[in-house]
Amino acid sequence: MAAATFRLDQTGLLVVDPYNDFISEGGKLWSRVREVVEGNRCIPHMIEILEAARSAGVRVYFAPHHRWRPGDYETWRFWAPIQEGSARSKNFADGTWGGTFRDEFTPKPGEIVAQEHWCSSGFANTDLDLQLKKHGTHQLIVIGLRANTCIDSTVRYAAELGYEVTLVNDAIGSFGWEEMKATLEISAPNYARAILSTKELIASMFRVGA
Amino acid sequence: MAAATFRLDQTGLLVVDPYNDFISEGGKLWSRVREVVEGNRCIPHMIEILEAARSAGVRVYFAPHHRWRPGDYETWRFWAPIQEGSARSKNFADGTWGGTFRDEFTPKPGEIVAQEHWCSSGFANTDLDLQLKKHGTHQLIVIGLRANTCIDSTVRYAAELGYEVTLVNDAIGSFGWEEMKATLEISAPNYARAILSTKELIASMFRVGA
Amino acid sequence: MAAATFRLDQTGLLVVDPYNDFISEGGKLWSRVREVVEGNRCIPHMIEILEAARSAGVRVYFAPHHRWRPGDYETWRFWAPIQEGSARSKNFADGTWGGTFRDEFTPKPGEIVAQEHWCSSGFANTDLDLQLKKHGTHQLIVIGLRANTCIDSTVRYAAELGYEVTLVNDAIGSFGWEEMKATLEISAPNYARAILSTKELIASMFRVGA
Amino acid sequence: MAAATFRLDQTGLLVVDPYNDFISEGGKLWSRVREVVEGNRCIPHMIEILEAARSAGVRVYFAPHHRWRPGDYETWRFWAPIQEGSARSKNFADGTWGGTFRDEFTPKPGEIVAQEHWCSSGFANTDLDLQLKKHGTHQLIVIGLRANTCIDSTVRYAAELGYEVTLVNDAIGSFGWEEMKATLEISAPNYARAILSTKELIASMFRVGA
Repeated sequence: MAAATFRLDQTGLLVVDPYNDFISEGGKLWSRVREVVEGNRCIPHMIEILEAARSAGVRVYFAPHHRWRPGDYETWRFWAPIQEGSARSKNFADGTWGGTFRDEFTPKPGEIVAQEHWCSSGFANTDLDLQLKKHGTHQLIVIGLRANTCIDSTVRYAAELGYEVTLVNDAIGSFGWEEMKATLEISAPNYARAILSTKELIASMFRVGA
Repeated sequence: MAAATFRLDQTGLLVVDPYNDFISEGGKLWSRVREVVEGNRCIPHMIEILEAARSAGVRVYFAPHHRWRPGDYETWRFWAPIQEGSARSKNFADGTWGGTFRDEFTPKPGEIVAQEHWCSSGFANTDLDLQLKKHGTHQLIVIGLRANTCIDSTVRYAAELGYEVTLVNDAIGSFGWEEMKATLEISAPNYARAILSTKELIASMFRVGA
Repeated sequence: MAAATFRLDQTGLLVVDPYNDFISEGGKLWSRVREVVEGNRCIPHMIEILEAARSAGVRVYFAPHHRWRPGDYETWRFWAPIQEGSARSKNFADGTWGGTFRDEFTPKPGEIVAQEHWCSSGFANTDLDLQLKKHGTHQLIVIGLRANTCIDSTVRYAAELGYEVTLVNDAIGSFGWEEMKATLEISAPNYARAILSTKELIASMFRVGA
Repeated sequence: MAAATFRLDQTGLLVVDPYNDFISEGGKLWSRVREVVEGNRCIPHMIEILEAARSAGVRVYFAPHHRWRPGDYETWRFWAPIQEGSARSKNFADGTWGGTFRDEFTPKPGEIVAQEHWCSSGFANTDLDLQLKKHGTHQLIVIGLRANTCIDSTVRYAAELGYEVTLVNDAIGSFGWEEMKATLEISAPNYARAILSTKELIASMFRVGA
């Protein structure tokens, strides 16, 4: 796979679903992601990349999953299994700690929080594509959770919509190593221009192109 | 997983990429898909489902991959790895046998051929969503190739866009069993309301709902 | 123009931008819309239609313009003139009375409030299309403000996306009669299946089809 | 209105519907557009701009309306009035002279012909947005026909999707001066960053920004 070359003024960091329910001890989904995110040190890597992007002047975007609110989904006639699961578990409930970004991922002024997505792709039915265009972003670095759902769908959509994607293999997490493998070995090699480790990414970001 | 209940007037069969290059002996990709599509009898199953849909009055849609034409991709500044592969291999070249649907999949009058898709999702940058709405279709049965790319992306997009999806596990094919497993066990259970065998699907289609 | 025939279970009422800033005395834009909305009795008509839809069991949707928040637009590299105007005027500021729906338009349980739109179309970069599909809505009655911007763009998008649109000529308003004419006589006849008065609409809604 | 400043490597010329049926004597719609397009010298201006763009190295895009083909529209359950008109008149019939671009607008290698659009916007249900992103285009110059339908809808969509639009007031045409006024005075000032004459545009294109 070709080394990633970034034009920093055209590059964005996209952080997917950094909710306490997902990535903080005590969150509703913590017990399910723990093995992987502790195993690949996903959270410290996500923080390291966020800080590196901020230092390098790379625009930061957040793609938040829909926060559960009373009444959601109840009137729908059609839904996907993953939405039934969200409805049952009331994941990322609006106004709760679980539905708040983990402290280290609190957006700063000038950072863009896209509208909440209802299923898995950060692009579907949201303003993420618009925000990227409004800022002239063409290259996307994707980190966050969950590998085979939100990350995979967001990477696929990004590629379909014309963006150049870099995925960071130790800054994403999921419910198990099989899911990680499906994303990193079976799916993403088709859609991501580069799949890098955090260390390789940070080296690349400062070896910028013209 | 709940049994699928179809309202036939709201149901569509979506056939993805039934090109000779993919599913006919002598096609450019035949040697890569042969093990799986012979193993699960994908092609006879696809034909069986197509005929059952036609008999039952279920609307048939085709989602064709972009046919290669001279000059394609050459001016792009950004592309996905899977597009580089298509450009190199000149898959589904326009005007050739490889870029023609296999005989049994020749569209009949009243069947809808969506615009060609550039990457993997039959929905992205095409009129497929429009055509489904223009015909009042809400439930989609998805068959064809290739499991972890076009099928997976099309199923994900369908779910994101609000459709109810049924995937047929022995009427899809790919380059290997690992890819099939990633799609059928890791990805699609989140997005498809039902994953059925051809036999189960055909039984379901005639046990229609109200 | 053909009389409108509605299937109530496939029909939705779409109320566009019923903010105090637009349609209440004292709102930021009140002085600009007053002549038209008093002239055609837009607001009582909007209320009458909303109540008729609720009585008839027609699903109600709201398409709200982006509420101004500090920092909005400031980092964009490209914007439309109408967005520059919104940024300057801080229209529909979040958390203020002006950025709140006028009392009579407070959504009830089971009514759908789409995500805020950044420009004029209620569909662009929002979940409105998804919500309509999730509820099986194919026919849309459109009312609200402002005729030549949000109404016109929303009607055009609805038609492009495959919906059948009815526009109500005395339940929309704008900054002047020239704008009303441009929408009702020049643009909408191409995209709306019916353009009715409130009285005609309400008669139609109870003369429902099969 | 601010003078337009173009970055040529981010600028595209978008030519909408330059079909013989529209802009050649003998075309199906010629008698309807003749007064305006002869009045503002639309066609020589369109040619002049196309040549200037080619000379300046500005990427050229074409947004073609759906060419009529047998069976089109017949199975749809919902359609817009403008689509009923197209179906009746068989405008731009595929394989005919009327459905061919006027000679001067034959695309050259490296120029992009988007997929055909079914209604009015060159963006809706096509790959135009993708093609613009793949080439890094952010600024669009729009010319062609018909002012209040395809041009207006394409300009609105372009603005919604995040592009910066320049409209050329004497390189667009329509069925009458009222339609031109609705587009140029009522609608486009909200969505186009600049509305220029051909002469002003060409002066601007060579006074490029950084």
